[in-house]
Amino acid sequence: MAMKHNLKVESVLLPQGMQVDSRARQFSVRADEPKELGGTDTGPNPVELLLCALGACQCLTARFVARMKRMDLQEYRVELEGELDMEGFLKADGSIRPGLQAIRVRTYVKSAHPPEEVKALLAEVEKRCPVGDSILHGVPIEMSHEIVSP
Amino acid sequence: MAMKHNLKVESVLLPQGMQVDSRARQFSVRADEPKELGGTDTGPNPVELLLCALGACQCLTARFVARMKRMDLQEYRVELEGELDMEGFLKADGSIRPGLQAIRVRTYVKSAHPPEEVKALLAEVEKRCPVGDSILHGVPIEMSHEIVSP
Repeated sequence: MAMKHNLKVESVLLPQGMQVDSRARQFSVRADEPKELGGTDTGPNPVELLLCALGACQCLTARFVARMKRMDLQEYRVELEGELDMEGFLKADGSIRPGLQAIRVRTYVKSAHPPEEVKALLAEVEKRCPVGDSILHGVPIEMSHEIVSP
Repeated sequence: MAMKHNLKVESVLLPQGMQVDSRARQFSVRADEPKELGGTDTGPNPVELLLCALGACQCLTARFVARMKRMDLQEYRVELEGELDMEGFLKADGSIRPGLQAIRVRTYVKSAHPPEEVKALLAEVEKRCPVGDSILHGVPIEMSHEIVSP
């Protein structure tokens, strides 16, 4: 298995509204905004998708670590809450950030293993989770564009 | 419209495999891993979901800014590429980060407006995009847990 991966996604804004279809390999993910933000509410909004990515990554990292440690997880569930101040997005004057101000992650684990072993697993998840590390420490983003006239 | 939002998501690891279902309001998002990573390939992996969130947010921020500036976007499409070194996840010794090392975002715009106006729109998108700001600058993550014995 190659260690270095380039993951690729394409997102397309559908005509007129707030619907976006993103494609990752054979999968398609719809995003939209609720009606009160001008959308048609046919999918989670992008910030909710970001939290889905983090929750999913916490769970899959836990599965990976549990297999490695030969631990059984009877239940593994993550509740995530993201704090967003829309004023940062709307004003965009730099006084309030447009992104999330904080994320709270609460993990519920049911396991027959002693709590100390479960805590050690949780510490591994926190350290290894790729999406968690990306969001907590940030990632350099390089932007480029191509503009075409009709 | 309230300015401060708490967005909530719940992610549940399904029994045995690498499938995770995340719920945001009425929406459900499946994540999985490809077979070579031990999954069943029924959905994008979490890092692909992170890129979907970023691509969708770029597109929706563009729609919002275009409406504000009364600009018409005939096409708006974003290609994203994320660089991941799986060794960071597997070794977890701190020498290589487990998260993305870089993200490249290439935006394709077709618009009847002069290129300078489109460039000004792109600059606004870069400044305002909530997911972009979250990933570029990072977000504090507060972790807590509850461990239950069966």
